[in-house]
Amino acid sequence: MEVKGISQAVIGRLPRYFRYLGELKDAGIERISSQELSQLMKVTASQIRQDFNNFGGFGQQGYGYNVEYLYNEIGKILGLDMTHRFVIIGAGNLGQALGGYVNFERRGFIFCGIFDNNPEVVGKNVRGITVRPMEELEDFVKDNNIDIAVLAIPKTGAVEVAERLMSVGITAFWNFAHVDLNVPKGVQVENVHLSDSLMKLSYNARCNRTEDENI
Amino acid sequence: MEVKGISQAVIGRLPRYFRYLGELKDAGIERISSQELSQLMKVTASQIRQDFNNFGGFGQQGYGYNVEYLYNEIGKILGLDMTHRFVIIGAGNLGQALGGYVNFERRGFIFCGIFDNNPEVVGKNVRGITVRPMEELEDFVKDNNIDIAVLAIPKTGAVEVAERLMSVGITAFWNFAHVDLNVPKGVQVENVHLSDSLMKLSYNARCNRTEDENI
Repeated sequence: MEVKGISQAVIGRLPRYFRYLGELKDAGIERISSQELSQLMKVTASQIRQDFNNFGGFGQQGYGYNVEYLYNEIGKILGLDMTHRFVIIGAGNLGQALGGYVNFERRGFIFCGIFDNNPEVVGKNVRGITVRPMEELEDFVKDNNIDIAVLAIPKTGAVEVAERLMSVGITAFWNFAHVDLNVPKGVQVENVHLSDSLMKLSYNARCNRTEDENI
Repeated sequence: MEVKGISQAVIGRLPRYFRYLGELKDAGIERISSQELSQLMKVTASQIRQDFNNFGGFGQQGYGYNVEYLYNEIGKILGLDMTHRFVIIGAGNLGQALGGYVNFERRGFIFCGIFDNNPEVVGKNVRGITVRPMEELEDFVKDNNIDIAVLAIPKTGAVEVAERLMSVGITAFWNFAHVDLNVPKGVQVENVHLSDSLMKLSYNARCNRTEDENI
């Protein structure tokens, strides 16, 4: 399927479509029109059609979308038909929380290793995986076919750790460290900056704005 | 300061400006031009000027921005000159991680209470705060001047818990539950859907796209 040149805004909306379609599928619903999906998701039907047109449409006019087909196709576009093996750097509460999400596994994201530089944490068990010392990071990544690294560490050290991971071939980072990583082309970073998100809430709560832009 | 009608895209960028300006301030830098800030943050100088113009400018042509003034002004816009008192619903690893962030406190977000419906977790201690049973939620919120609720619970139950919180006056949610909350106008929701973020990374990693859109 041709998926070049799709904007990050569209990509950012795909997981939400995937989530709603999964719920419809689980509820036994076989077909849905863009109007119905629009009401459910609170986006315009025109937006939905435009988004899906980036991937060749999926639907039949007047007939609606086949829920399971659409769910599977969006899943494939998102790479969820493949297995991704990840390591977590940082075994604090956040690292442990991320390691503990069994739902990630159902989407093909396999939690393979977790690392920390704190000797008091090394050796602990996170959902069956032993926390390893940072010295073992490069060898482990090389030996275990890891393709995603999750940075659940403070911003100090995050840049250096990312460099170490790139030196052994990691090209995808899920970054919870509160710093922007400067990476070469071909390396992907998805940031989750929790403080930024909280500040945005603070702004909106203060202004008590009434636009429905919370999606 | 007049801050009506600002787009959510601009709001979403403010915390990042705030973060960079804080780092410049800590490094003792007093002035910065939009060109220098542009290079540092990897956004165009024109974008920066446009964003700041929403709030009346802040700068002087050819003279650059006063870092500390700009930092303080953006902080005020973000509501960081006020104190926000929050409770966390869900004392699993994620709830504990969020309760443990001392950095939130430095921004004026005060961790006041944490609740769970699991009797094995109730009574545990999270950074000096005792986990309370869900039965005490409404009274606690009413008695403790709480304005933000953090939902660190699975999607089952999140809608009902949000209703309970709204019934005692909560109008701002930081929602980690993997469900969209339908809230009336005037209630703010900032979603952190971790699976959605991971899927977006999966898509980008698969396509190995080369646009620099990772910010």
